[in-house]
Amino acid sequence: MPKQLPTGFQFAGVSAGIKPSGKKDIALIVTDQDAVAAGVYTTNIIHASSIDWNRGITPTDQFRGIVINSGNANACTGKQGETSNQRVAELAARAIAAQASQVCVLSTGIIGHQLPMDKIESGIEAAAGRLSRSREDFLNAAQAILTTDQGIKKAFRIIKVGDEEVTIVGMAKGAGMIGPRMATMLAVVMTDAAIDKATAQTLVQQAADASFNRISVEGHMSTNDALILISSGASAAKVDSGETLHALAGALNDACLELARQIPADGEGATHSIEVSITGARSDEQADLIARAVASSNLVKTAITGNDPNWGRIVSAAGFCGADFEMDEVNLKLNGQTVFEQGQPIEFSEKAVSQIIKDSFETLIELSVGFGAGAARHWTSDLTTAYVEFNSQYTT
Amino acid sequence: MPKQLPTGFQFAGVSAGIKPSGKKDIALIVTDQDAVAAGVYTTNIIHASSIDWNRGITPTDQFRGIVINSGNANACTGKQGETSNQRVAELAARAIAAQASQVCVLSTGIIGHQLPMDKIESGIEAAAGRLSRSREDFLNAAQAILTTDQGIKKAFRIIKVGDEEVTIVGMAKGAGMIGPRMATMLAVVMTDAAIDKATAQTLVQQAADASFNRISVEGHMSTNDALILISSGASAAKVDSGETLHALAGALNDACLELARQIPADGEGATHSIEVSITGARSDEQADLIARAVASSNLVKTAITGNDPNWGRIVSAAGFCGADFEMDEVNLKLNGQTVFEQGQPIEFSEKAVSQIIKDSFETLIELSVGFGAGAARHWTSDLTTAYVEFNSQYTT
Repeated sequence: MPKQLPTGFQFAGVSAGIKPSGKKDIALIVTDQDAVAAGVYTTNIIHASSIDWNRGITPTDQFRGIVINSGNANACTGKQGETSNQRVAELAARAIAAQASQVCVLSTGIIGHQLPMDKIESGIEAAAGRLSRSREDFLNAAQAILTTDQGIKKAFRIIKVGDEEVTIVGMAKGAGMIGPRMATMLAVVMTDAAIDKATAQTLVQQAADASFNRISVEGHMSTNDALILISSGASAAKVDSGETLHALAGALNDACLELARQIPADGEGATHSIEVSITGARSDEQADLIARAVASSNLVKTAITGNDPNWGRIVSAAGFCGADFEMDEVNLKLNGQTVFEQGQPIEFSEKAVSQIIKDSFETLIELSVGFGAGAARHWTSDLTTAYVEFNSQYTT
Repeated sequence: MPKQLPTGFQFAGVSAGIKPSGKKDIALIVTDQDAVAAGVYTTNIIHASSIDWNRGITPTDQFRGIVINSGNANACTGKQGETSNQRVAELAARAIAAQASQVCVLSTGIIGHQLPMDKIESGIEAAAGRLSRSREDFLNAAQAILTTDQGIKKAFRIIKVGDEEVTIVGMAKGAGMIGPRMATMLAVVMTDAAIDKATAQTLVQQAADASFNRISVEGHMSTNDALILISSGASAAKVDSGETLHALAGALNDACLELARQIPADGEGATHSIEVSITGARSDEQADLIARAVASSNLVKTAITGNDPNWGRIVSAAGFCGADFEMDEVNLKLNGQTVFEQGQPIEFSEKAVSQIIKDSFETLIELSVGFGAGAARHWTSDLTTAYVEFNSQYTT
């Protein structure tokens, strides 16, 4: 629970009946005054109208609000997708006395159906009537953006800038279709730090690269994903020097990484979260290539599901990804236990290591592939029968 | 069942007790005289000693035999892997009165354990004592190379060259760890066509590109995969002109594609085989990129498992793979039913299309992404809870 929310923001989360379950499905976040907003969006050619809309209006220093619906993604472009998206922005703008061009729109949930505009309209009105600065309404908003997530995802940071405080708070949703380079992942991060729109754009891109672009559930990049940073500028702290900006960037990256790591940990059906840490590569790019290959291997993921210290699947995933390394310089640790050294399996108790994997929700795969300085980390979840059941039966 | 085996070969498949189940696990294929052999091998940096061994001795025109064990892969390089592999070659060579350098070695099965050399030794002796030209022993050999496969995989072609016949017969194993650009896939294709070793190498590479490199189960390239072409030269047909060579290449590609397609169709736990056909791309390479992205998406695969005509997962997989196309030129058919046209979902009966997917083991995904000449096909299997159960519990 955030101890303190950044000043200058109001929140609401309501149920508009889009989700058959009756759970909350419309979130509204509004700034008191014109604010700065910047975003990073899916690079999928097939993407939602909301992505085009947000790309068109950010970065901006005239931001007033963001409306997010869950339960049914407006996942298509095309005339009807555009019309619906424009209408959502207009409805939200009217409800908060702003212009449509001052309102970002995000949409998530099942794809393949047009938005139920009547429900969206009454939901936005209800949300606008409940806007508040309370933690409860922040949590209601964080709840309303979820789809198949088990629980809300939030992160909070506070830094001192001179005698003043700057607060950062973020919310995210994940669960399915989480892939490298953004996925069906929505995140909104808010701060009261006073920064200009160009700075906001730089910060949000850096934060995405350091966090959301390093997680995956099944490696499938979605049509709707977005990370939006909103800065109300309400803090009296002056973020203007290299040093204060560096501190803000660090806190923002940390908050985003904390948010991002909650996503695979809450992957559909996950029984383990998996951190893949690569060191000794020829470059960070090569390490990243290896980390992604290991993290996206179904065979690695199912081995971890089965608490199986299967070094063969891990090293062979590294071996085919295109990175260049010497087999006899490869070392592997699973949850701190060495199982493979200098390109050779070593004697270890499979039973004991299996028990160690079983006893911990967090699994750490540490693969060293040589003596280079390249390093990278990637986070994912294991692959379970529950994931398959879920994704072969996902219709609500 | 092949009507006729190529002349010049003898086969055996026996149980050496490597598989706890007692199923056949040693195959031996021997040529009557020095023969031509060429191979294509895994490009995984992490690969087995047998791969280095075969690479070292092929292409050759002094080939005499190949020994294959299943049940326990000699999957490692390193001193002990090399020593074991060399010993297997020597044992087989002694049993068939050849030199070790005339014998290829393949090994498949669970990885992470050293080969049980005593069982291998007695198994090779038993196999050598049972060598024959019979179809039964061909099938015994095809049986002995399997791991988690449900059944043997074979293909057969016969072509007329002048008045003479040339016969091609192949066997393969697949099931797990099947990925683009070769995988835990072993295939041996035999012909009695008289070709030289350079021609054999060209033919086997072309055949691999057109077949085994277009299939996947989970996209994980293995450490041990190999396709080996053996030509006894015992046919009197003269394969020396461009035309006869072209006919032989065509028949060989066909046979390999027939073998390859049996692999995902027998993927672990598969309830559908999936053919992904991409047309209209800017180039064949771009089409191939899209085909692989769609075929390797867990979300696409689980949708097919659930008989779900989920166009969103398919087009979004195409959209993030890096290929360049226009969203509004995208059309999609599932088992012949149009579900998405000019970048838009169209009205269709989800229930009816779902039933069509359910009623057929074969699922055809036809995605047209524009007006270019680029086309590609890829074959895979769906992703089921049985796959996950199998791969999280695979220890024998």
